[in-house]
Amino acid sequence: MKRLREEKVFKDPVHKYIYVQNETIWDLINTPEFQRLRRIRQLGTSFHTFHGAEHSRFSHSLGVYEITRKIISQFERNEYVDWPKEESLLCLAAALLHDVGHGPFSHSIEPVFGMRHEEWSRRIVLGETEVNRVLRDVSPLFPERVAAVIGKSYSKPIVVSLISSQLDADRMDYLLRDAYFTGVNYGTFDLERILRVLRPHGGRIVVKDSGMHAVEDYLMARYQMYWQVYFHPVTRSSEIILRKIFLRAKALLEEHYDFRFMVYPMREWLQRTITVKEYLLLDEPFVQMAIMQWIREDDPILADLCSRFMHRKLFKYVTMDTLDTAFVEDMKRAILQVGMDPAYYLEIDFPTDLPYDLYRPGGNEEKLPIYLLSDRDRLAEITDKSDIVRSISGIHKGQYEVYFPSEVAPGFH
Amino acid sequence: MKRLREEKVFKDPVHKYIYVQNETIWDLINTPEFQRLRRIRQLGTSFHTFHGAEHSRFSHSLGVYEITRKIISQFERNEYVDWPKEESLLCLAAALLHDVGHGPFSHSIEPVFGMRHEEWSRRIVLGETEVNRVLRDVSPLFPERVAAVIGKSYSKPIVVSLISSQLDADRMDYLLRDAYFTGVNYGTFDLERILRVLRPHGGRIVVKDSGMHAVEDYLMARYQMYWQVYFHPVTRSSEIILRKIFLRAKALLEEHYDFRFMVYPMREWLQRTITVKEYLLLDEPFVQMAIMQWIREDDPILADLCSRFMHRKLFKYVTMDTLDTAFVEDMKRAILQVGMDPAYYLEIDFPTDLPYDLYRPGGNEEKLPIYLLSDRDRLAEITDKSDIVRSISGIHKGQYEVYFPSEVAPGFH
Amino acid sequence: MKRLREEKVFKDPVHKYIYVQNETIWDLINTPEFQRLRRIRQLGTSFHTFHGAEHSRFSHSLGVYEITRKIISQFERNEYVDWPKEESLLCLAAALLHDVGHGPFSHSIEPVFGMRHEEWSRRIVLGETEVNRVLRDVSPLFPERVAAVIGKSYSKPIVVSLISSQLDADRMDYLLRDAYFTGVNYGTFDLERILRVLRPHGGRIVVKDSGMHAVEDYLMARYQMYWQVYFHPVTRSSEIILRKIFLRAKALLEEHYDFRFMVYPMREWLQRTITVKEYLLLDEPFVQMAIMQWIREDDPILADLCSRFMHRKLFKYVTMDTLDTAFVEDMKRAILQVGMDPAYYLEIDFPTDLPYDLYRPGGNEEKLPIYLLSDRDRLAEITDKSDIVRSISGIHKGQYEVYFPSEVAPGFH
Amino acid sequence: MKRLREEKVFKDPVHKYIYVQNETIWDLINTPEFQRLRRIRQLGTSFHTFHGAEHSRFSHSLGVYEITRKIISQFERNEYVDWPKEESLLCLAAALLHDVGHGPFSHSIEPVFGMRHEEWSRRIVLGETEVNRVLRDVSPLFPERVAAVIGKSYSKPIVVSLISSQLDADRMDYLLRDAYFTGVNYGTFDLERILRVLRPHGGRIVVKDSGMHAVEDYLMARYQMYWQVYFHPVTRSSEIILRKIFLRAKALLEEHYDFRFMVYPMREWLQRTITVKEYLLLDEPFVQMAIMQWIREDDPILADLCSRFMHRKLFKYVTMDTLDTAFVEDMKRAILQVGMDPAYYLEIDFPTDLPYDLYRPGGNEEKLPIYLLSDRDRLAEITDKSDIVRSISGIHKGQYEVYFPSEVAPGFH
Repeated sequence: MKRLREEKVFKDPVHKYIYVQNETIWDLINTPEFQRLRRIRQLGTSFHTFHGAEHSRFSHSLGVYEITRKIISQFERNEYVDWPKEESLLCLAAALLHDVGHGPFSHSIEPVFGMRHEEWSRRIVLGETEVNRVLRDVSPLFPERVAAVIGKSYSKPIVVSLISSQLDADRMDYLLRDAYFTGVNYGTFDLERILRVLRPHGGRIVVKDSGMHAVEDYLMARYQMYWQVYFHPVTRSSEIILRKIFLRAKALLEEHYDFRFMVYPMREWLQRTITVKEYLLLDEPFVQMAIMQWIREDDPILADLCSRFMHRKLFKYVTMDTLDTAFVEDMKRAILQVGMDPAYYLEIDFPTDLPYDLYRPGGNEEKLPIYLLSDRDRLAEITDKSDIVRSISGIHKGQYEVYFPSEVAPGFH
Repeated sequence: MKRLREEKVFKDPVHKYIYVQNETIWDLINTPEFQRLRRIRQLGTSFHTFHGAEHSRFSHSLGVYEITRKIISQFERNEYVDWPKEESLLCLAAALLHDVGHGPFSHSIEPVFGMRHEEWSRRIVLGETEVNRVLRDVSPLFPERVAAVIGKSYSKPIVVSLISSQLDADRMDYLLRDAYFTGVNYGTFDLERILRVLRPHGGRIVVKDSGMHAVEDYLMARYQMYWQVYFHPVTRSSEIILRKIFLRAKALLEEHYDFRFMVYPMREWLQRTITVKEYLLLDEPFVQMAIMQWIREDDPILADLCSRFMHRKLFKYVTMDTLDTAFVEDMKRAILQVGMDPAYYLEIDFPTDLPYDLYRPGGNEEKLPIYLLSDRDRLAEITDKSDIVRSISGIHKGQYEVYFPSEVAPGFH
Repeated sequence: MKRLREEKVFKDPVHKYIYVQNETIWDLINTPEFQRLRRIRQLGTSFHTFHGAEHSRFSHSLGVYEITRKIISQFERNEYVDWPKEESLLCLAAALLHDVGHGPFSHSIEPVFGMRHEEWSRRIVLGETEVNRVLRDVSPLFPERVAAVIGKSYSKPIVVSLISSQLDADRMDYLLRDAYFTGVNYGTFDLERILRVLRPHGGRIVVKDSGMHAVEDYLMARYQMYWQVYFHPVTRSSEIILRKIFLRAKALLEEHYDFRFMVYPMREWLQRTITVKEYLLLDEPFVQMAIMQWIREDDPILADLCSRFMHRKLFKYVTMDTLDTAFVEDMKRAILQVGMDPAYYLEIDFPTDLPYDLYRPGGNEEKLPIYLLSDRDRLAEITDKSDIVRSISGIHKGQYEVYFPSEVAPGFH
Repeated sequence: MKRLREEKVFKDPVHKYIYVQNETIWDLINTPEFQRLRRIRQLGTSFHTFHGAEHSRFSHSLGVYEITRKIISQFERNEYVDWPKEESLLCLAAALLHDVGHGPFSHSIEPVFGMRHEEWSRRIVLGETEVNRVLRDVSPLFPERVAAVIGKSYSKPIVVSLISSQLDADRMDYLLRDAYFTGVNYGTFDLERILRVLRPHGGRIVVKDSGMHAVEDYLMARYQMYWQVYFHPVTRSSEIILRKIFLRAKALLEEHYDFRFMVYPMREWLQRTITVKEYLLLDEPFVQMAIMQWIREDDPILADLCSRFMHRKLFKYVTMDTLDTAFVEDMKRAILQVGMDPAYYLEIDFPTDLPYDLYRPGGNEEKLPIYLLSDRDRLAEITDKSDIVRSISGIHKGQYEVYFPSEVAPGFH
């Protein structure tokens, strides 16, 4: 690890300061691929619900790096034998780069484009990019190792679990950061205490059992953030319109519609032939400007959807515990009656399909559960010890939301 | 004033909640012109220095409205006779709309386009816009009155001073908000205490003298924010490159250069023939995407400057108390030697030219000074009473900064 | 209600400012009986666990008053018809005075002295005191009404519920305040949001159902504070020693032991003959100084217990899910063996006996449960709607703690 | 340095956590002499002005220790050659113990008793105490070295300056802590940034010049705290009454007055014959209880002053820029007229006599000034570089305050 001659710092509202001591990390931050994350918002369309939610994946990525750095630094200071010291730089690099493949509004519109951001992260790390060049300078196989950690296939689970588990640096940063920028105070928990009770133990990261209440508090923060912020129906409404816009543009392209505005590489993106180099041209200004220009398209559906998104005339919604199909059919008829196409103006949503998950050990195979370590070196999965975690993890709060334009049925939210 | 059936709230990280009780205000917030402010950052290029500074003029405008609402509500609750109650809605509307004419990165690039944002605010309020329609619903002359308050020409100075004076709702919000989002804690002061000591008095807003220390603290916060954040040389460097980009684009347009990418209404903007309707199409995604696309232009100067801005390869700088012209000449020669044009690659900057000002009573004629009101109803300008304000207002911290590409002279910041 | 000529404010770290607009409230704060609360700590012996927990019932009482004032002010601003406006001063006075009868370390040592602080509050309000004189100035029956609210027997439950229910001003203040002073951040919740969703409705205070998540968050804060702070075993250890000290002193007094230090009205207090006037001489300096002096008594048990308390040589403890009577017997033998008396040196504790309670509707008859009010004016008890509250309220975390001197069994906590 | 088997932590509201890694430090904290600091308030009588100011010297002393620990840890992590590593434990012990000699309300009443708390600190460190025993366990001369650091006579100024200079751990902690507990936000500054720019350099601690603005901010915080909190006239009023009480008690003792309440070692204290062992029996409960009991004394002056202090019936005051001797003479006559003794009921106060000082390099010989270190290793005293510090340090805000009972001249504050 090449140490910087002088430590660099970034002022950060969540962690106060972010410290960079290593040259590789500094060089990675300065690549165009990493700088691009300044132009991808962390919470996608949530700014339509919480006006403060304008923070970027750039600041989140620095935050994940910083939490990882703090954990590793604690492990090294205490000289824990179960910590593989030689993996530190790998952990830091993977923490920094774990989101580098995110595209504009990825969570909302990935399905339209047919490739997940995790896959783009891998391609950016391994492809002909500045990021790859900086990583290769460490060692020829370093890019492969970083890609493996991001892809959760790296041979040592302890390394993966720092970045991706039920109690990882990624989640810890985004909960605190999203709470800070939205202004809700549900997402706050005692980060310093949690960091202090983490221990490397037999190939995984575990929690000293005296920290159980701090973990409970963190899981409650998560629970609250999901329902108050991440699954907020107004945000979902905005996401739905955004997705419909791209579905419509794709359909029009397939029908050889003559776009007024079709800037490179939008066509390639919609046609799923985009290269890494082209993908890196995509960002939220690109999407927002396209939508702004498409307001002036001749296609009434595209123009209308774009205008709704841009001027925040979102769909309204009705919430129901079980899906009321009669209501949906009525709504479909009402939409047709005003001359709209239900394919673009009606959506049934069931938020648990979303890419966020509550704590459910076993339920989600890719996320390692949380283990408590007793004084006598025994491990217990946290639901065995904590009444409160057991009760949260059993909660299944599935509700249907039906979205539609307010013109069709005034008087709803 | 039409009261909303049910008070609306916005979650805001700075003021916790923003309360809307009036229908006109609610309707103004929902106009496309006001929603556009979501796409204009409050601090322009500062995000290149402080990664948290990604907040928009939308949230700031809501904040100015909220502080104005709190001040007025205090005046009304205490039934101060010097407060013209009939002007409340006018104050709230003007507070909300005071920045509605801001364009993308206005502070940096207005000089290129030849019209100030204050003038655009006036045009948007008075032109054929949704904002104008909502205001006309109050009364036919209401748009004119709002425009007069924003333009500081309204007949009652007490109304103007709420939005525009040395201690106005605008500054109070931006200091707190910019401090919050950048994460520096210099900008914090005791807002609640200041609000409590404001008094309407003989046609102006004054401060009870028991609040002098709170005002001192606010002015110190301002002093610190200017030097730590607003005048930060890295931000200035980024602004300079941005301005050079548009100067170059304008020059190329005048030379009939054939742009690969020239989207409507960029041409009209550069040629200064843009209409209000076209102006409202402008936002930061528009500018950022243009810059992204221009990286692929044939003109090497335009392409290079755009790449520097987008990938944050900013100019370096040297600070000097008096301008070292020999150094500047040397630098000019060095720039020419590497084949660059000093018109685009060299800049001398003297930050006191900036649109922010320290507290200097009399020095800046358009900003009303701060008066303290004693128990015996006597007024005193604050510099007569406060040693600390007197000492700050006498400080003139003018330093020159010379900016240039790092290639020309490595080893600088 | 006599309005003060000028509103008075107290700087408060939790609520920023506490506002007093009414003369009766101002006069009550300035009575010796209310000032005495400065000398009674809010959290008794918790300072032995959390060194910041040195705040007094004086600041808590002001806080309860301030939250009550905010709730009432919201009710009046919105002109809710279900709010009995004529009861406002009564609510404010009762909020301020609800803890006026607290004695030094009351929660720990009340059992020794045979009278609860609620009864002392009633006596102080009704007896020959300054407080009574100020209240009588409002109206001759006003002291009786205040005493009835404090005693939960007042005819209008809506008034009682502001001060004493599952979601009252008392709990809201102490959770926030205790979290602030101890420094734990478990106790924080969104007070402003909760205040905004409270509604007077049919003789009780209910919560708009859109505020359900905010109430969940408040109940979780409560849950965490109970286990992290209020039931902390180190605090309990300190309480146990304190109680043993007074049990010993009482026993010695009954045996006519000749105390070196027995200051007025300690004897009357121990003998349960104390008058209101004498009771008002009691405070924590009184108790602490007595303990300091008793370190020099000849009785070895009293001297030793006092020294342990004063120098923080607390009892150690062992935690067990079910009571291990064999362990207790062993411990008793070990204590006898070193010449100690198990009556003073051994204690079995089961924290759910404590004066705090979790949210258990129905389980605790004196605390009114929390009702949610739907848009269609239907009421539902919160456990019917909230999975998370249902799961917390079902948790019964009873554990035994056995306390003993460290000399007897080294190696424990 | 003996490392603890497991790091211990204290929850602290100001620093989040206080970390103890060394056995000597742990043992010192557990001595009766250090635990006594829990019973001495940090801000003396300020709780009469700011009700939150109930925090103790115990928590402040832990805070000074923690800041010192952080500074040293940074020095060691960066392996600065100018840092004498072998002095680390000495610094930590001196930081922890620097206030161990404080008596109850020392700043207010030391003059009556004729010995300063610094001298008592030295005696406690060197005398027959638990503290001394723990220090001697390190090495026979260790107590002497600790006493020398506290007494500012230690041979290496760099060690002294950590605990006692214009930018020392003592001030940094008390500004932040007093701001936190009073609730004023003037005292906050960016501790983390200041710690990051401190450097050991040629036998002293200096500041990297890039940190100048952070130091300015710290000095402004200090300036504001002095005038808003430390010199608050209500606090001074309370201090004056307290001092008068002890002056009266002393005079009565000399006149052989027969006290109802005179508990050991009050007599010895007043007669200035008190030993270290007796001194350690003194704390604020001792003083408060004595005052409570003295309310019932026959001497009308003592009884009245004690009642005023206990029930917060403080003296009123008039502020004047220059001393109006005619006013003082009038007041004296008025006091005599109502039968009071001006020696006990009138006081002229000039706050700059207080034990706090603003930043005045050279003006106060015992406090080392603040030096800035440039990139080129040049040192400059901060007033040479900072306009703002120069202007603060020149301010002399001396005002007279005349204190008297409200009965004499109603209508004042």
